[in-house]
Amino acid sequence: MAETMRAVAVGVDHTVSVERTARPAPGAGEVLIRVAYAGINRADLIQRRGFYPPPPGASPIMGLEVSGIVEALGAGVTRWRVGDQVCALLSGGGYAEYVAAPEGSVLPVPAGLTLKQAGAIAEATFTVFANVFETGALKPGETLLVHGGASGIGTTAIQMARAYGAKVIATAGDDAKCKLVTDLGARAINYKTEDFEAIVKAEGGADVILDMVGGPYVQKNINIARPFGRIVNIAHMEGAKTEVNFMPVMLKRLVITGSTLRARPIAEKARLAHEVETRIWPWIAAGKVKPVIDSVFPLEDVDSAHTRMAASKHAGKILLQL
Amino acid sequence: MAETMRAVAVGVDHTVSVERTARPAPGAGEVLIRVAYAGINRADLIQRRGFYPPPPGASPIMGLEVSGIVEALGAGVTRWRVGDQVCALLSGGGYAEYVAAPEGSVLPVPAGLTLKQAGAIAEATFTVFANVFETGALKPGETLLVHGGASGIGTTAIQMARAYGAKVIATAGDDAKCKLVTDLGARAINYKTEDFEAIVKAEGGADVILDMVGGPYVQKNINIARPFGRIVNIAHMEGAKTEVNFMPVMLKRLVITGSTLRARPIAEKARLAHEVETRIWPWIAAGKVKPVIDSVFPLEDVDSAHTRMAASKHAGKILLQL
Repeated sequence: MAETMRAVAVGVDHTVSVERTARPAPGAGEVLIRVAYAGINRADLIQRRGFYPPPPGASPIMGLEVSGIVEALGAGVTRWRVGDQVCALLSGGGYAEYVAAPEGSVLPVPAGLTLKQAGAIAEATFTVFANVFETGALKPGETLLVHGGASGIGTTAIQMARAYGAKVIATAGDDAKCKLVTDLGARAINYKTEDFEAIVKAEGGADVILDMVGGPYVQKNINIARPFGRIVNIAHMEGAKTEVNFMPVMLKRLVITGSTLRARPIAEKARLAHEVETRIWPWIAAGKVKPVIDSVFPLEDVDSAHTRMAASKHAGKILLQL
Repeated sequence: MAETMRAVAVGVDHTVSVERTARPAPGAGEVLIRVAYAGINRADLIQRRGFYPPPPGASPIMGLEVSGIVEALGAGVTRWRVGDQVCALLSGGGYAEYVAAPEGSVLPVPAGLTLKQAGAIAEATFTVFANVFETGALKPGETLLVHGGASGIGTTAIQMARAYGAKVIATAGDDAKCKLVTDLGARAINYKTEDFEAIVKAEGGADVILDMVGGPYVQKNINIARPFGRIVNIAHMEGAKTEVNFMPVMLKRLVITGSTLRARPIAEKARLAHEVETRIWPWIAAGKVKPVIDSVFPLEDVDSAHTRMAASKHAGKILLQL
């Protein structure tokens, strides 16, 4: 008899509710995690509306990251023991009491962090490492421009880049968010009242730009990138379709690129996990990179949590507590 | 008394004529070359119209590449001797009887080549090496798509990529040009009568795309790039401004980039020259990469040479004979 668990279900009208469903069993090489906290990401909101279907083989339940306790081990798992405190990057299934994850996507809770804090770090650290450090190839002394600087990814990008010795400029949408990103070590720009293009230009431009806005930001990013600059889009909240003048791309030898994390193969995520644990976990343990948590909602209040993110009222991560 | 030489001058009405002007003297680290052949590039046509001013310090005379004989040496030049047969990449000054070039931008005429053939190779080999091999990071077994496959750069790109073990698809504008690129080892597409987007897609896509067209090609290039594809623009003959849907750039993790050669620092050109001589000159000596020469015009007929290029009637390089 399969045991059951509570999990968030999405109705045909895109409403959400907590229902009982079968508890997953860990397959070979997988770890079953009893979830303590699940992080909320914008991709979840898109999946809920039906536009971001889970990749083949992934859980149909929303949720791309959790923290929790190892409950059971699938065949061949060597690193983990039942009872270990872990966090994990998921291809889905986090909005539930239990989730099965490939052992290579599971990391220990960093030294000194609570399970609550650990629920806020997987997606952001993996995303920033993959896009700013690997694809963007940020170097110490260079300037990183982060759009959405007060978001979970933004606050993480600022701290990781600062820990690495880069200068950081970050855009944010109100004074409180600007104060937050300033406190984290970035030069803040209120994009609603200031012209980020003019300010970044006056600051000497940006070597790496991490952007989730797209739309009108694409040309501005190109205009303010320094020679050999790398522009990495991880989303296009204002649209992926826009008119662009590519002349500066050629003249300044820029790189325009982007990526998603969820669709990457399990082996690639394991490689990233190893890099993140080796390079970023020590910064977290040393207090150089701190999870910024906006708010915690009980699983039953998932709709309120989504509403808060959709309205961009949050600064840092929104978590669900199981 | 400065000696004089014949060189092409551009009038205020953009007409060209051969005039007498001061012969350049080789500065420290420079080689004075008595020009045998000067290659014509599209950039020359743009410079003639006043839209592509020479970079600071460059000769105001048109001409980005020559072959010829070393006539005199500036202070500190160690590699060359008077009388050496050479070819050179220039930041300007090729449409003249003499030109001074930094010694690092000068290369020996490859074994087995005439001075005429050597006049056709510098700009194309440097451009293809820098953009397809370095920036584009083409690997053996990958597929290269070359637009303008019958141009000087196109014919060179096809042969260099084939010599390296890549598959090549090339677009060209008429049947004779398609036959030429087929003979060089590429899958030819007549872009006037065929849909290159559909054909490349059916062929499995392209890993590296070398494009000088831009405009409507930008989106098509993005659509037919394989995952992790690199799209390198070295010009935008159909315009640099266009509407683009960037979603595939993120989903396929593409790189959109570009570069120009002329503005690169002298030290960077010397580094490229070393790579080109080490890696490409042996392919030329072995007959794997052959200069394709469209036509040769006397210096006085420079206007006819430009007219031929502007009409895209040529296949391979157009040369001026001094």
